[in-house]
Amino acid sequence: MAQDFFIGVDLGATSVKTGVVDSAGIIVDQAAADAKGSEGPETVVRQIAFTINELMKRQSSVCCRGIGVGSPGIVSLDRNTVSYPPNFSDWTDIHLGDMLARKFPFPVRVENDANVAAIAEAKFGAGIDERDFIFVIWGTGVGGGIIVDKQIFHGPHGGAGEIGHLSIDHNGPQCNCGNRGCIESYIGQRYLSQRTKEILNRKTKGSAPSLIERLVGGNLDDIEPRIISAAAEQGDRIAQDILREAGELLGFALSSAMNLLDIRVGVIGGGISAAPDFVFHAIESAARSRVLQPHRSHIRILRAKLGNSAGIIGAASLVM
Amino acid sequence: MAQDFFIGVDLGATSVKTGVVDSAGIIVDQAAADAKGSEGPETVVRQIAFTINELMKRQSSVCCRGIGVGSPGIVSLDRNTVSYPPNFSDWTDIHLGDMLARKFPFPVRVENDANVAAIAEAKFGAGIDERDFIFVIWGTGVGGGIIVDKQIFHGPHGGAGEIGHLSIDHNGPQCNCGNRGCIESYIGQRYLSQRTKEILNRKTKGSAPSLIERLVGGNLDDIEPRIISAAAEQGDRIAQDILREAGELLGFALSSAMNLLDIRVGVIGGGISAAPDFVFHAIESAARSRVLQPHRSHIRILRAKLGNSAGIIGAASLVM
Repeated sequence: MAQDFFIGVDLGATSVKTGVVDSAGIIVDQAAADAKGSEGPETVVRQIAFTINELMKRQSSVCCRGIGVGSPGIVSLDRNTVSYPPNFSDWTDIHLGDMLARKFPFPVRVENDANVAAIAEAKFGAGIDERDFIFVIWGTGVGGGIIVDKQIFHGPHGGAGEIGHLSIDHNGPQCNCGNRGCIESYIGQRYLSQRTKEILNRKTKGSAPSLIERLVGGNLDDIEPRIISAAAEQGDRIAQDILREAGELLGFALSSAMNLLDIRVGVIGGGISAAPDFVFHAIESAARSRVLQPHRSHIRILRAKLGNSAGIIGAASLVM
Repeated sequence: MAQDFFIGVDLGATSVKTGVVDSAGIIVDQAAADAKGSEGPETVVRQIAFTINELMKRQSSVCCRGIGVGSPGIVSLDRNTVSYPPNFSDWTDIHLGDMLARKFPFPVRVENDANVAAIAEAKFGAGIDERDFIFVIWGTGVGGGIIVDKQIFHGPHGGAGEIGHLSIDHNGPQCNCGNRGCIESYIGQRYLSQRTKEILNRKTKGSAPSLIERLVGGNLDDIEPRIISAAAEQGDRIAQDILREAGELLGFALSSAMNLLDIRVGVIGGGISAAPDFVFHAIESAARSRVLQPHRSHIRILRAKLGNSAGIIGAASLVM
């Protein structure tokens, strides 16, 4: 007997990844396409539709219960309109939900991509036993979502959860957003890579090359967090120090958020969710050392479980 | 005809202030007593009951619709139990609501004092036209409450809203709470007074005394925020600079909270709510310069309207 399923669309700046997800949160089939974000919203919607149609050909479409989409940008509170997604051309306010609903006879819901990943972890991942947690996506930038009572806390205008733009030093480095000292400006991909490059450049000439240098074949411009993470995993001290310090700074940012929200659990996803345990310990002990006394013994930092699948699974769960 | 009324109790470390409040949020009668916080919870409850009985003698008690209490400390989510209020002896977890309900035939609700003031401003004060705002009590310490959709956001354990312990510099001054750089450690009464004293001590000997010095009769240990505020009001430059800088730092803290919560309005109460306009402008322009771009043009900082009455009015409105 054919089972109910749910379509989850993970829309990114470069690609659309779409999956057929069952009610247990398992991806049973997948399709992908170029997002073509530079060609305007109509084209992007066509690319999304293409992936959905690919999957429908292989499934019994009568059992599809809806389409959920995780999108960059600001998503309206009615879960339909996407505004100003970065790296998409000619895209101001687009009724993405309505545009897809005209093409498919299923309910459609749209949610911000960081929130979608948070929902996935809440329903099927590291947060399955938690009612409340702060989700952090630590990757190119630092995004987040706030889960309260198993639901996303959207805030009055739909944009809550920007933990990446919590400042840990009002005189700190300039962030892309215009603020100073945002945690993103310390631990986002660009900053981490730049800092690693500087440290390696300062190393005594003639000393043995760091594993990081070997992993990028000597080209320090190719350093990425996953390289630092891989080097750390293999015991490279410089890589370990950089990630430990970054984890500590994230812990400081989380402690402020935890004091404000009275939430005691953090779930950390994104590229860093593959990092060695000591990074998570650094986040946890830093947060614990800085929160208000009543929270202190309850602070827990968990590693996200769903990796890159969180986007598709969380999107599908919007319509479950 | 006798009208319905509501009892509001503002419990502080030194005094109990209780009022009869009508449904329009007007205090129509008041009574006060020493809180006797050092004599244990039974005595404190007796003092509260004394003020209520005083008022009942003067009112038609058949029209009393309930008793609301604003208390320091952590208040349980069922609005009954108060834990560890600072400056109260022998007080761990006390069922304050139940204890009062045994003495009076009315419904009793208890809420944290900062939240109570936030509720008062939301229902009858500066926040009357706002669905969502961050309330800050800037006085001895820096407390707060988060209003979402006209309700207090309590957080999972009842303790949300601690804006005073949002850190604006992870290497900043040590705060009483154990963290570093909490906004309270920059603008709380003790820090502000200390900083003012230091600045005045550094002044060139023989230069004309600052108005602050004159207001405290030369005794710099007597400097309090209301003195600084009074001097600023009368044009004292040193006082103005100190308050402007403090306002700016509060704006930085608020910008992080606003990014996280997607809330765009701040209401500032406590002793500082009597400060000159330029302090509020400093908070607003600092917050606006630091929040994420979509919020920027919407940021507003409002002066709380209810002053010291917020405690009684907000407490009464818990049972309205």
